[in-house]
Amino acid sequence: MATCGLIEYEDASPEVRVVYDDIMATRKTDWINNFWKALASHPPTLRRTWESIKQIMAPGALDTVTKEMIYLAVSATNQCPYCMASHTASARKAGMTDQMLAELMAVVGMANQTNSLAAGYRVEIDERFR
Amino acid sequence: MATCGLIEYEDASPEVRVVYDDIMATRKTDWINNFWKALASHPPTLRRTWESIKQIMAPGALDTVTKEMIYLAVSATNQCPYCMASHTASARKAGMTDQMLAELMAVVGMANQTNSLAAGYRVEIDERFR
Amino acid sequence: MATCGLIEYEDASPEVRVVYDDIMATRKTDWINNFWKALASHPPTLRRTWESIKQIMAPGALDTVTKEMIYLAVSATNQCPYCMASHTASARKAGMTDQMLAELMAVVGMANQTNSLAAGYRVEIDERFR
Amino acid sequence: MATCGLIEYEDASPEVRVVYDDIMATRKTDWINNFWKALASHPPTLRRTWESIKQIMAPGALDTVTKEMIYLAVSATNQCPYCMASHTASARKAGMTDQMLAELMAVVGMANQTNSLAAGYRVEIDERFR
Amino acid sequence: MATCGLIEYEDASPEVRVVYDDIMATRKTDWINNFWKALASHPPTLRRTWESIKQIMAPGALDTVTKEMIYLAVSATNQCPYCMASHTASARKAGMTDQMLAELMAVVGMANQTNSLAAGYRVEIDERFR
Amino acid sequence: MATCGLIEYEDASPEVRVVYDDIMATRKTDWINNFWKALASHPPTLRRTWESIKQIMAPGALDTVTKEMIYLAVSATNQCPYCMASHTASARKAGMTDQMLAELMAVVGMANQTNSLAAGYRVEIDERFR
Repeated sequence: MATCGLIEYEDASPEVRVVYDDIMATRKTDWINNFWKALASHPPTLRRTWESIKQIMAPGALDTVTKEMIYLAVSATNQCPYCMASHTASARKAGMTDQMLAELMAVVGMANQTNSLAAGYRVEIDERFR
Repeated sequence: MATCGLIEYEDASPEVRVVYDDIMATRKTDWINNFWKALASHPPTLRRTWESIKQIMAPGALDTVTKEMIYLAVSATNQCPYCMASHTASARKAGMTDQMLAELMAVVGMANQTNSLAAGYRVEIDERFR
Repeated sequence: MATCGLIEYEDASPEVRVVYDDIMATRKTDWINNFWKALASHPPTLRRTWESIKQIMAPGALDTVTKEMIYLAVSATNQCPYCMASHTASARKAGMTDQMLAELMAVVGMANQTNSLAAGYRVEIDERFR
Repeated sequence: MATCGLIEYEDASPEVRVVYDDIMATRKTDWINNFWKALASHPPTLRRTWESIKQIMAPGALDTVTKEMIYLAVSATNQCPYCMASHTASARKAGMTDQMLAELMAVVGMANQTNSLAAGYRVEIDERFR
Repeated sequence: MATCGLIEYEDASPEVRVVYDDIMATRKTDWINNFWKALASHPPTLRRTWESIKQIMAPGALDTVTKEMIYLAVSATNQCPYCMASHTASARKAGMTDQMLAELMAVVGMANQTNSLAAGYRVEIDERFR
Repeated sequence: MATCGLIEYEDASPEVRVVYDDIMATRKTDWINNFWKALASHPPTLRRTWESIKQIMAPGALDTVTKEMIYLAVSATNQCPYCMASHTASARKAGMTDQMLAELMAVVGMANQTNSLAAGYRVEIDERFR
């Protein structure tokens, strides 16, 4: 279904394989998920997206599981089925328990609710928050 | 500007004051921000929304600063100016540093990017993620 | 600020005035709000948008106040400040009370919450709902 | 597929069964749809979400079918397949005809259109609407 | 699954057939896709939507392939699976190559990213841009 | 108002100045807009975002004005005031006329409308589009 097809490792150009190899090495895994196989139809997009994600998702002031949960918060808000599927898996791998998921989703649901309430009541920003 | 006005503490009914008092006690603060003053025009909404937020934002498997950052992730995705203003303040109060904000926003930006890429390339969900 | 400026009645071409006149006659009012003055920079967009809105917002199986509240539900979800401002005014004019607004927004908030929960928990559609 | 699984009535704890029983009694039905079975993996979320929805969706200044249509307006805007499926069913049960659905969706479509036009033309809010 | 069913040409009223015929003639094709068959359950919506799209998508200052790509940019941002599927097909028919799709999606992804960054950092609009 | 402040050229570190200099050289301009001054509070985000935008917005299979219009399509859909302001300016600089803007926004509005209609009527994807 993917618009430009999925490029498997064995069919990939050397340029694409370099990225695939780095994805597998960085993630300590031996397979590539469809997202990257779809982006591989345009190698500059594949490389730029991977380099950005690799840099951004590395642990820093926030640890990996926190970053993965933030990813899920955005993806649930945007109703992105692919990203929910793939990042639920990576969040679990990074240590997210069912209890953590439940608390995460409770906050996501509440934020989506109050975002629309703030817009709906046309609440002006408090002086102290400016 | 708020559609139904803002109800100040001194003008509030006893029913509303009970909620205002609980907000200030729970948050260890001495003022009420506009969001609650706007909801107070409909006391059942005020009470239900506060009770839910109080329950959801209490530390559990996730600590308070993590929950506040998740709130910001949703609010930035939804472009809600009020919630960005108020929850940036509460996230900072809970310990979010500039470095943590920067990493949070980097993940939020990347998730919004890849959500649209997954939709744009029509990537099908991998068997392993189902 | 409007990108292509606002076209006042006195500066409008006959083609634009016909639409302005119809807006004022249909809405039983004597002024034109900025949205239409902005669209007037491209008369075909002005005319097509007005003809569609006029047809859609006319009372039918749903009455005017219900239609205006649905408009607000969408506009709060999308965080559109202009549409919240203008359609709160028209909903009130059509009979929306503060109590109705409060119930409207409670449903809007809850729907935004459960939409993200359904995505977040990746709930599959029940057989009976297909 | 649901991330934390679906909890059937016969496998549910007494705490969860109390909610399931109340859902079935309130809705005058003898089954539970997947949304609740997914939330049941975290009983506090199940209970809080149900109590809120029960309170919000009860007829008041707005009747049930109006509330269900508002739910659909938000769910269509957010592109939530689960909520469209389940709330189309409940709106129909509450009396929504095909004609009402058509008028509802016409307003939803128009609101989504004009929301983006107002943003696209950067229309400033009229003095009278502030 | 479509809520009000799909109306095939042979079952369509003369009023609906007029629109179907115009769709096929305008698009130089011999079939009707499901979107129109679903809207046909409410002929005024079918006619109004088609007349608007026909007018808007006709080549003008922007050519057809540019308009189709803009359609895809919105649909990917909104996560609309149906519109991604149908407009990817029409964009290709209008001349969109894989390279053009890749550049389109790269811009869409970047815009979604920076939209959330601008909100997340609460960046104020520069004087020069007002 | 910007959460982490705005960093002016004269206060910027050498690392940030390198990016500012490249922005000004690439865009043939002598000033930096607030978006970059806000990101500069976290130099890795500044550099990564700029490098990505520079690569993505360079003319290729799509020319600059087309790319800028796609940016506007996403930003109007997301209701991002900052990005509407800044990219309206850059689209004009790249050659977007009022007529092009009008046609762009007409398509954006129509896509947002039909996206919600496709979801609202629950239209299934045609075999031919899969």
